Amino acid sequence: MPHIGIGMDSCVTPLRHGGLSLVQTTDFFYPLVDDPYMMGKIACANVISDLYAMGVTECDNMLMLLAISQKMTDRERDVVIPLMIRGFKDCAEEAGTSVNGGQTVLNPWVTVGGVATTVCQSNEFIMPDNAVVGDVLVLTKPLGTQVAVNAYQWLEQPDRWNRIKLVVSEDDVRKAYQRAMFSMARLNRMASRLMHKYNAHGATDVTGFGLLGHANNLARIQKNEVGFVIHNLPVIAKMAAVSKACGNMFGLLQGHSAETSGGLLVALPREQAAAFCKDIEKQEGYQSWIIGIVEKGTRTARIIDKPRVIEVPAKEKEGELW
Amino acid sequence: MPHIGIGMDSCVTPLRHGGLSLVQTTDFFYPLVDDPYMMGKIACANVISDLYAMGVTECDNMLMLLAISQKMTDRERDVVIPLMIRGFKDCAEEAGTSVNGGQTVLNPWVTVGGVATTVCQSNEFIMPDNAVVGDVLVLTKPLGTQVAVNAYQWLEQPDRWNRIKLVVSEDDVRKAYQRAMFSMARLNRMASRLMHKYNAHGATDVTGFGLLGHANNLARIQKNEVGFVIHNLPVIAKMAAVSKACGNMFGLLQGHSAETSGGLLVALPREQAAAFCKDIEKQEGYQSWIIGIVEKGTRTARIIDKPRVIEVPAKEKEGELW
Repeated sequence: MPHIGIGMDSCVTPLRHGGLSLVQTTDFFYPLVDDPYMMGKIACANVISDLYAMGVTECDNMLMLLAISQKMTDRERDVVIPLMIRGFKDCAEEAGTSVNGGQTVLNPWVTVGGVATTVCQSNEFIMPDNAVVGDVLVLTKPLGTQVAVNAYQWLEQPDRWNRIKLVVSEDDVRKAYQRAMFSMARLNRMASRLMHKYNAHGATDVTGFGLLGHANNLARIQKNEVGFVIHNLPVIAKMAAVSKACGNMFGLLQGHSAETSGGLLVALPREQAAAFCKDIEKQEGYQSWIIGIVEKGTRTARIIDKPRVIEVPAKEKEGELW
Repeated sequence: MPHIGIGMDSCVTPLRHGGLSLVQTTDFFYPLVDDPYMMGKIACANVISDLYAMGVTECDNMLMLLAISQKMTDRERDVVIPLMIRGFKDCAEEAGTSVNGGQTVLNPWVTVGGVATTVCQSNEFIMPDNAVVGDVLVLTKPLGTQVAVNAYQWLEQPDRWNRIKLVVSEDDVRKAYQRAMFSMARLNRMASRLMHKYNAHGATDVTGFGLLGHANNLARIQKNEVGFVIHNLPVIAKMAAVSKACGNMFGLLQGHSAETSGGLLVALPREQAAAFCKDIEKQEGYQSWIIGIVEKGTRTARIIDKPRVIEVPAKEKEGELW
């Protein structure tokens, strides 16, 4: 998400009081899943993710930004909007914070988003610019959320569906969509906590600019003359094939496909990375992947010619929620 | 502005650090004047006004929220949006703060708004709930911004214009529009500062719910059993007549007409109110008005049967800017 004036996920403002800093971020989204409750959760998880990317694990307050479509019937509005608000608030609660304040307007498009704010001491956040040669890059969620969400919508659009049905079954698409939805609603908080424990040298979250876009943004602001090289692409199962079948429309394997509420991309000391991944899995039951390395370079990121695609299946426990 | 869960203009969150509180507010707006630079200023002044209503005079950071219409041509976008951003930033600078962070999206409708955040000690804000019987109510900007903006648009719509041309000239409307635009772009910061000096017992800013709506909101949260009675309505010159000529469409004299970036409505000890008004005029060159009194009551507000309408002419110095 474009931020004004700075290259970090959250802005950090020194305060007038006792060496404290204000860390805050804002984002808003148009709905991309058909479950309003989950959409509220996804929006909240994505807003707060920019704090987590800075290693900030506590959020002091959230504001909610909401636009209600004036094209909705009263009944649609009365069903959908409270569910979306509840999802947002429940996710904020999971994150150990709460929503106090916000703004609601009418608009042609339903919009949900918010503001996440923390006041903290300087040891509570991790500046993202300390990657060194020899570090490795870890990604904490699989790629392919945009592809999965689109493929799911195409189940209802025969001309679109015909383009991909040779490489994917309806069941594959439903599973991928479900995997994407739960992944997007998952907080990056544990990853953020473990960044401190395993001495992370910097991180960003993977969202609208895709993996390569955010990797480049992170590379650009490094203090050292480094470059990021990505070898592995963990992708929600079958979505690499769907992306290929659509030509260059998503650019998933080129790192261009937008993600919503993606994982953290973390630069870690090589000897700590495996333990970081293992710890997340132990705490949360979700896999992370070492996807690349930090080399000497000119502050850019690239994906190697034929990256290894890691197919990430839907989790059992997600299926049970349906 | 509808806030979630609380009845105050800004939300106040106690922090983990040294008795400090986080005070923040968010708002966004659809354009209502045809000058994008002034629209940016108005949006900023209105966002930050919710801090001023709490007696908070320092803003630590602002975020900007922007939606660019996908119906704009590239040229329209490249001219209009940078001007709007400049207006917003210039106004933030006037307020002694700056814009660090934000979010931009595409939308059918152009939208501009933001978030204003302050971290402060509890003596830096004035809780709005301490009005006592015998206080008077002061308003620091004239009413009628919505009427003026609409009347100005109607200059181009003969069927609308015909409804009001008997009570107002084209020149009156242009002057009123100009007055409204500069009034909306003016910060409530001096009023906020003087709330401390003259021991204000509470305040709110007058925006989307109109004078009576906000007066009622302020009355509802009072600790004491008080009621607000409004006797005087300072209105941008001729706009009372326009409102009357439109039947009940605006409800200006009933206190229902929405305002954008309106003044502060302040409850002050009776013996301090005149000095408060005089001080603002000395510092800023703008009039304020004692518009009502605080009586014993049931935490509601009302406007008396035939309130005195005070016609507020356009200022010379505003005209010079054109």
